[in-house]
Amino acid sequence: MQPFEQLGLIGCGLMGGSFALALKQAGLVKRVVGYSKSPSTTERARQMGVIDVEAPSALLAAAGADLVLLAVPVAATEATLKSIKHLVTPGMMIMDVGSTKVDVVHAARSALRDQLGSFVPAHPIAGKEVSGVEHSDPQLYKGAQVILTPTERTLTEHLQKAQSLWELLGCRVRAMSPEAHDSAFATVSHLPHLLAFAMMQSVITQPDSDEVLSLAGPGFRDFTRIAAGDPKMWRDVLLANSEQVLAQSRQFQQALQQLECLIQAGDGQGLEDHLTLASAARAHWRMGVPRR
Amino acid sequence: MQPFEQLGLIGCGLMGGSFALALKQAGLVKRVVGYSKSPSTTERARQMGVIDVEAPSALLAAAGADLVLLAVPVAATEATLKSIKHLVTPGMMIMDVGSTKVDVVHAARSALRDQLGSFVPAHPIAGKEVSGVEHSDPQLYKGAQVILTPTERTLTEHLQKAQSLWELLGCRVRAMSPEAHDSAFATVSHLPHLLAFAMMQSVITQPDSDEVLSLAGPGFRDFTRIAAGDPKMWRDVLLANSEQVLAQSRQFQQALQQLECLIQAGDGQGLEDHLTLASAARAHWRMGVPRR
Repeated sequence: MQPFEQLGLIGCGLMGGSFALALKQAGLVKRVVGYSKSPSTTERARQMGVIDVEAPSALLAAAGADLVLLAVPVAATEATLKSIKHLVTPGMMIMDVGSTKVDVVHAARSALRDQLGSFVPAHPIAGKEVSGVEHSDPQLYKGAQVILTPTERTLTEHLQKAQSLWELLGCRVRAMSPEAHDSAFATVSHLPHLLAFAMMQSVITQPDSDEVLSLAGPGFRDFTRIAAGDPKMWRDVLLANSEQVLAQSRQFQQALQQLECLIQAGDGQGLEDHLTLASAARAHWRMGVPRR
Repeated sequence: MQPFEQLGLIGCGLMGGSFALALKQAGLVKRVVGYSKSPSTTERARQMGVIDVEAPSALLAAAGADLVLLAVPVAATEATLKSIKHLVTPGMMIMDVGSTKVDVVHAARSALRDQLGSFVPAHPIAGKEVSGVEHSDPQLYKGAQVILTPTERTLTEHLQKAQSLWELLGCRVRAMSPEAHDSAFATVSHLPHLLAFAMMQSVITQPDSDEVLSLAGPGFRDFTRIAAGDPKMWRDVLLANSEQVLAQSRQFQQALQQLECLIQAGDGQGLEDHLTLASAARAHWRMGVPRR
């Protein structure tokens, strides 16, 4: 694959910064021009070598780029794409890294109109419990799955290039519809985040929460890790995919209440049967292994 | 500290096996006699060097021991203690490693009666997502907190010895009442386990669960890790501490429903405010750091 001449990076947080570093490390880009809403973030990204040139606007980050990566909270997608729209050419490939796809595709359709062919909606399944450019990591995407949800107008050339690019970064790439994506990720990502946030919320509103938290061990640590996620990013995701998230939450609460009933009734055998199924399913699950 | 002459290990699973290995590695025990309900487990423990001698009963594992560790599901505490009772001497120290303490103390009181002074109820905050003697690990307890919940009859000599022993294994030791223990651990351990089990339950009862699970990433992996826990052990814990667990579950569901309302209402600012508090609390939390 020919290296890209210029990556226009819009949003220099953990996801965007890690993408720029990974691309540089793989020799897949000659120059990175970056923009962040906060000028101090953009400056920090340049000082860290994540970007080569600071741009004072999204438009100027995109100008002259053959690859644009949108790494902003999903609710900012439409405004950001609109702000660069008149520079978009068919030769320019635009990707995002958003955790929801129906809203992003809708925003792109509305913002890009006849330039929609340039847009390849992407969701790399990677992250950390910390955010910000200072945690950028060229290895963040290595071994991750990347879901592409092309629109009916996405140019095949761009779709293929996007697939090759992510594969060269060490990812496994799958394509699906935005709807299938959002439904699946409501289950395996958005709901777990909502539950982890609610868990923390529930603990900290109790008396003695400091004392209680000082007793928590490795189970709590792992269970709540994702509750440290970026509040603005997760606000957007939960709102963008609200219907699916709420449906999954209802389903979850039914499962929880079923277990509660067994506990309340002191039904040891029934409880053990349910826990056995759940435990076996989790024990056999392996991350990123395709279904049989 | 003088090494113990003989550890009588009752229950050769992950917790018991790791304790025996840690004690051996620290030079704190001369001989380990072990018993498990399943003879093949006992045999495997001997083959692995976790125990030195197989005992055909709990009583024979305890015979001649100056230290007995009970590492069985908490519901088996009373019957197990009863079965060794007539061998218990004031010089023998008995500990457990159960995740609940009110029920364990109650069981010990009822089983040991005037030998209750020998019993030091203990809960090391350590574990793995796998169970069984084959996962025994002499490092399992290193750096962990251990909660001791002595009864009013526990001999000071044993309490001090228990504290020294766990400290020599690299643990930090705290003492509290069984009630305070069970209340705190309902919040930071039992409820998270219940939620993780319910999450898996909810996923696997959906159509396409294999496909959906194949998309899950590191957030899901960590959030659900504890759902792979031992079903029998967690059945007992959830039943033994049912009142506190159900109370915590109600509190959690209120927090969840509050977040759901904000999502439903599309209240971005309210949602962000709540997520910000939860995220900050989790980001500042450090495992095992005493409260300020």
